[in-house]
Amino acid sequence: MATRNYQGKKFEIDSIKASMDSLTIEEALQININNKPFTVSMRTPGDDICLVRGMLHSEDILKDRNYLLNVILKKENKDGIVTVVDLTIPNEELGEGYSNSRSLLSVSSCGICGRTELGDLSFLGKTIDDNKKIEISLLNELFDKMNALQYNFRQSGGTHAAAAFTIQGDLLYAMEDIGRHNAVDKIIGKLILSKKLDHASVLTVSGRVSYEIVIKCFKAGIPILAAVSAPSSLAVDYAKELGITLFAFCRDERATCYSNPQRTKTNKTKTKAS
Amino acid sequence: MATRNYQGKKFEIDSIKASMDSLTIEEALQININNKPFTVSMRTPGDDICLVRGMLHSEDILKDRNYLLNVILKKENKDGIVTVVDLTIPNEELGEGYSNSRSLLSVSSCGICGRTELGDLSFLGKTIDDNKKIEISLLNELFDKMNALQYNFRQSGGTHAAAAFTIQGDLLYAMEDIGRHNAVDKIIGKLILSKKLDHASVLTVSGRVSYEIVIKCFKAGIPILAAVSAPSSLAVDYAKELGITLFAFCRDERATCYSNPQRTKTNKTKTKAS
Repeated sequence: MATRNYQGKKFEIDSIKASMDSLTIEEALQININNKPFTVSMRTPGDDICLVRGMLHSEDILKDRNYLLNVILKKENKDGIVTVVDLTIPNEELGEGYSNSRSLLSVSSCGICGRTELGDLSFLGKTIDDNKKIEISLLNELFDKMNALQYNFRQSGGTHAAAAFTIQGDLLYAMEDIGRHNAVDKIIGKLILSKKLDHASVLTVSGRVSYEIVIKCFKAGIPILAAVSAPSSLAVDYAKELGITLFAFCRDERATCYSNPQRTKTNKTKTKAS
Repeated sequence: MATRNYQGKKFEIDSIKASMDSLTIEEALQININNKPFTVSMRTPGDDICLVRGMLHSEDILKDRNYLLNVILKKENKDGIVTVVDLTIPNEELGEGYSNSRSLLSVSSCGICGRTELGDLSFLGKTIDDNKKIEISLLNELFDKMNALQYNFRQSGGTHAAAAFTIQGDLLYAMEDIGRHNAVDKIIGKLILSKKLDHASVLTVSGRVSYEIVIKCFKAGIPILAAVSAPSSLAVDYAKELGITLFAFCRDERATCYSNPQRTKTNKTKTKAS
């Protein structure tokens, strides 16, 4: 369940009408780890297990991506929406993301806000060295495939989407959520749970792309990230540093590559300038 | 400074061109309170004092909005961007937002993520009872006025905007930031610092509106909130509960009011249905 109907009053220049609109559901999910409250996530209900699994990976809470997690969804509210999830993780599997000082896991737009020191930001010395190449003419098709699955967006205009593809452009999964981050975490969780993370070479996201989406992509080992709209400065800085090929403004038959263009190829054209 | 130039490679169907693009700057700001690291905010540099002042108010860190805050901006990086801000606040002025368990202040899309228990969410028993009425035909003009000041957006396509207006539609301030939240906090901080918070009756935001923007608006005592795009379900739920008049989809000469329509008036038309 991702949308819910709400009554509105529509004003136009010459009229006012009562309306009944589908709006994206935004609900809190409390995440407990080993019987202690860990964090609260504002998310669109649905695929909660994928969301939690992706978060645990993206945020270094759980070390081993193959660990079989014990997840208990509970406390459904009157609409059948899960409000609390209980996780049991043995101490030796808990990663740095659990023990560091941030009480934040689940922010929908930022993976580093809430950390208490800037020093926490470093991801030194690691890069993705995958050298698969994406055929540029495929890029727009990937967004067409993702768009076709944005059911909630068509109803409510209020969700972000993310999707994972193979290097040949075959769709693995698409997910929607009120938070772009959550959509990405749901995709990564789904890829982990279905043991398809190694098949994912391209991650697409609706809207803009900021630093933290680049980090999530990097932690998942997905070499190519493509967004419909603008990147932030830090998104490009980190994509360069972490070895991610970052495309943005992928629309109207165009795309701009801001980092690591060695992973691009094109059958149709020649490069005029670098 | 809000944008920075980045080299890109623009792919079109029949060509590849090197490009130099202005991207929105996203940089970390570490906020220390009384010599202790408090949180890190990812924001677009500029108006940092407004941002910090707005956050302190929105998040109940500082109780008294008239308190003259001691803010020291420091550790400028090579581009002249502030990376650390030191605040000195006497204990008796520190509010609940300082002492509760969240180490999170500055999330750009969510005001409650990072809290560790759902129980923290309640804002019971308070509502805004301001009964000023907005002339509906003004709404589109407010967005035109805000748009005219979205300088960074026109350069980079990567910033959100927020603006404050009087009930007559006079612009007080407009601000931009990579995070919608930050733009709202900058506006609220600017209104506090200029002692104009009481004059603000309408807050406009670019893009969508989720729960936490409603909360910020409520805490600032601004009765009317209007967004260009979709609201979330929780935004509407809280707007109803807190007494905020919420408009969304304010574009193409239309607007939908989802809560507290008693603050609307229209010279041109009659209400056909409620």
